[in-house]
Amino acid sequence: MAESIIIYDTTLRDGTQAENFNISLEDKIKICRELDSFGIDYIEGGWPGANPLSTEFFVRMQDMTLRHAKLAAFGSTRHVSNPPEKDANLLALLAAKTPAVTIFGKSWDIHVTEALRITLEQNLEIIQDSLAFLRQRVEHLFYDAEHFFDGFKANRDYALASIDRAVQGGAELICLCETNGGTLPNELVDIIHQVQRHFAEQGRQVALGIHAHNDAECAVANSIMAVQAGALMVQGTINGYGERCGNANLTSIIPALELKLGLHCNAGSRLHQLYVTTRLINELANLPHNRYQPYVGDSAFAHKGGIHVSAVQRNPLTYEHIDPERVGNERRILISDQSGRANILLKAERFGLQLQPEDPLMASIVADLKNMETQGYQYEAAEASFELLMRRALGLRRKFFNLEAFSVSDRKYSMNKEPLTEATIRLTVGDTEAHTAAMGDGPVNAMDLALRKALTRFYPSLQNMKLVDYKVRVLNGQNGTGARVRVLIESSDETGRSWGTVGVSCNVIEASWQALVDSINFKLMKDEQQGMLPRSAA
Amino acid sequence: MAESIIIYDTTLRDGTQAENFNISLEDKIKICRELDSFGIDYIEGGWPGANPLSTEFFVRMQDMTLRHAKLAAFGSTRHVSNPPEKDANLLALLAAKTPAVTIFGKSWDIHVTEALRITLEQNLEIIQDSLAFLRQRVEHLFYDAEHFFDGFKANRDYALASIDRAVQGGAELICLCETNGGTLPNELVDIIHQVQRHFAEQGRQVALGIHAHNDAECAVANSIMAVQAGALMVQGTINGYGERCGNANLTSIIPALELKLGLHCNAGSRLHQLYVTTRLINELANLPHNRYQPYVGDSAFAHKGGIHVSAVQRNPLTYEHIDPERVGNERRILISDQSGRANILLKAERFGLQLQPEDPLMASIVADLKNMETQGYQYEAAEASFELLMRRALGLRRKFFNLEAFSVSDRKYSMNKEPLTEATIRLTVGDTEAHTAAMGDGPVNAMDLALRKALTRFYPSLQNMKLVDYKVRVLNGQNGTGARVRVLIESSDETGRSWGTVGVSCNVIEASWQALVDSINFKLMKDEQQGMLPRSAA
Repeated sequence: MAESIIIYDTTLRDGTQAENFNISLEDKIKICRELDSFGIDYIEGGWPGANPLSTEFFVRMQDMTLRHAKLAAFGSTRHVSNPPEKDANLLALLAAKTPAVTIFGKSWDIHVTEALRITLEQNLEIIQDSLAFLRQRVEHLFYDAEHFFDGFKANRDYALASIDRAVQGGAELICLCETNGGTLPNELVDIIHQVQRHFAEQGRQVALGIHAHNDAECAVANSIMAVQAGALMVQGTINGYGERCGNANLTSIIPALELKLGLHCNAGSRLHQLYVTTRLINELANLPHNRYQPYVGDSAFAHKGGIHVSAVQRNPLTYEHIDPERVGNERRILISDQSGRANILLKAERFGLQLQPEDPLMASIVADLKNMETQGYQYEAAEASFELLMRRALGLRRKFFNLEAFSVSDRKYSMNKEPLTEATIRLTVGDTEAHTAAMGDGPVNAMDLALRKALTRFYPSLQNMKLVDYKVRVLNGQNGTGARVRVLIESSDETGRSWGTVGVSCNVIEASWQALVDSINFKLMKDEQQGMLPRSAA
Repeated sequence: MAESIIIYDTTLRDGTQAENFNISLEDKIKICRELDSFGIDYIEGGWPGANPLSTEFFVRMQDMTLRHAKLAAFGSTRHVSNPPEKDANLLALLAAKTPAVTIFGKSWDIHVTEALRITLEQNLEIIQDSLAFLRQRVEHLFYDAEHFFDGFKANRDYALASIDRAVQGGAELICLCETNGGTLPNELVDIIHQVQRHFAEQGRQVALGIHAHNDAECAVANSIMAVQAGALMVQGTINGYGERCGNANLTSIIPALELKLGLHCNAGSRLHQLYVTTRLINELANLPHNRYQPYVGDSAFAHKGGIHVSAVQRNPLTYEHIDPERVGNERRILISDQSGRANILLKAERFGLQLQPEDPLMASIVADLKNMETQGYQYEAAEASFELLMRRALGLRRKFFNLEAFSVSDRKYSMNKEPLTEATIRLTVGDTEAHTAAMGDGPVNAMDLALRKALTRFYPSLQNMKLVDYKVRVLNGQNGTGARVRVLIESSDETGRSWGTVGVSCNVIEASWQALVDSINFKLMKDEQQGMLPRSAA
């Protein structure tokens, strides 16, 4: 095993092949800067010439300085009918002016004859002379042996010949690609060992890399085991985005190398940035964070069962494989009917509330909680509602406004158009009444708009609050349209803080209303704690 | 390696520990039937006594016959202060009356002293005598060695002693649990080999199982490699749901055993059901399908890049690790409408509709479908809506009524009471107008009641129709309360038939309205086909 592993990120190239993963040029540049700041060694920016976005990206990047990372341009071997110096693809790679170039070639005989439709010998020639042409013109030159493992299984000698020619052409590292993602770890390692023996028999020292896909859900294991078998470079993407089921997930590989195998990589020393880096990429791609994602998911260090909770508090190692802070994540104790007093005390501490185990109020909080949970309330994703509930029990909650009435109406007079929706709200702040109305995209949206209209003149900071997520769940389907529903709302504000609230009712409007009102109360409470509410209102 | 592997599913127990995974008793029963039909060997139904849902589940299951699967009840070793025959936990396991019982015990010394707070010797005693007590009273008895791998790393001798005592107590299989999910494959296999050597030195043949968690994104690889190392049982969950980052994903393990390792398991012979099984569980838990999920994700066999597409069309092996039909999934070519057609023909045949591949209407149905899907409609759980869509395209759909207008209003004048909800509907059947109003438990319920009131005088059979399930999913959370929602309604009638319909809008009332109207139209269409509609109405 090598002691320092090269991390080669292809989020901006292979990652963008993921379905629904679409980013703009500006986003590509932002991601590139983030990957650099995180300490990635090579950033593959795209295939210049293959699409305008990639070409333009490399032009823009020529004016920028990266702190640590080296940019790589990706492309294929030359076309069989072009000499290297006249091949548009190879020339586009040089025009990208990157410190590194990676080209891929065919290792699997059926791809040569069925996809490229050239002879097996022609393929070997284009591999070698494409690399030889680039070798004198770029600083770092890597070869991606596409489909290497499937090729090896189909025709061992040909697959080995293809990488021999890449070595002869001058590639400084041969990256073995598990392109279709179906090879399981033991077989993968066995093939790597055979490749190493093959080079050893020639008396050559050849640096190897691994590029794995996740079609058998083994991409992370395959990458780690390839490193343990001697690979020096890991190619992958942040959050594992990529064609079909994705590429090897660097988000899981980097911490495993650093925290579990004692191997160093440059990004390994900035592991605390991992959480933020993965979020940024999801935000830019406008894709949801995977709550269950290893290391960086919201659930990755969340504890639900009562036994787990009390054990984790005594010794976090008991139910956590690493310290969540190492990767910028944090421990979460979920509130659920399985948890008891230990959970509540921990929450109280986090909320900055004085509460002792023997406090008589404890019993009343536990009873409140059980009662709400029986009705269908759940506080796992609604910690703000839970904090409000605790403050109310402790007599610490103040009323920022009094609701007098609301109404919502939805009218459809033409079957081909969406209905018209209107909401009205009447409320008082101190002695002043506000009575407002608003139209919306639906009943909940109209109510939301009318409520903010009514409150913003008293509490201008509500303008900075946004509802970022809205979820509805039917609790018991058996009563058809009369079933109870639970609404979860996630809000955020200008401070970057975000909080969740919950409402439950048979009536989706009423349930949404509860979650909405909790969300606003929570925002006002936090603003007040920080002295940010205007004196007249408070 | 064993030739036939036992698959032990814990979706209903460990799976429900996943954050946001909440299912009702009825859902648990549905999932259990589906797992049985898929060919799972053991279904762990819950921890009887630990929560009312699990206890009730086992009571309900006592009246049901499973085709293949054996039900397992899960619980802990006895409490240190109880004799086995008076231990509430062990008695609850017996009261569940399942053919199999699994109990877990501590293998890791710090868990014994810090979590259980008993002596190391006491722990060994409760393991052995809990099992010995159960051994005479249940058909199959398994032992889950919790935290076995971490325990082994911390105190090898104690971890081995704990499973020795489980064997002495009469467990027929020792399942080694990688509870914290942080052990990487090579180390895991090394430990399994050491366990095997330990038993071999004693001259014992002990059946081993593996229970892995995904905190290092290696649960599938760990499970597969454990089997290759000799484990006979794999514990896991459908779609990998479970505490924190989840359990080992059976959805990826079963096809790997069957298609890649030549190992048999009973579910392996029903692999074509895999896709449907995974969907059903997501639908019941109201969780989104992971598009990138190996084997069963919508993107798993989707081809985007131009090179890939043409190669895949010539020879699917070039970019697919298995034939998607083996697992009930299908190839999708993202840039053409090729993929939809086969599906549509299959559906037409099922609906009894005449449709040929070369029919010019085919293109218009494909276009309709793509358009609806882009808007967020999904027909997997709403086949009735899809049949209506096809019949409309084929000119086979007749209007049973014309909707003129509806209105819904929701008014709240006292903050301590639920709002009052009223709906009105105006529609015509032939030349006759009906204009009705109804109060309801919420806007959708009121609308449902008003609509039936209006139609029942024309179509009395609607009285026999019931709405049995109602689900709401927010499609894109980013717009807060203005997000699009999808409503799924499941209806049934006196014939025992049930059908699903779908609606999509930013407005939850409009989306519910669409699904409701489709549901009623479907019922009337079926009644008419069977000559059950009154002549005056038809």
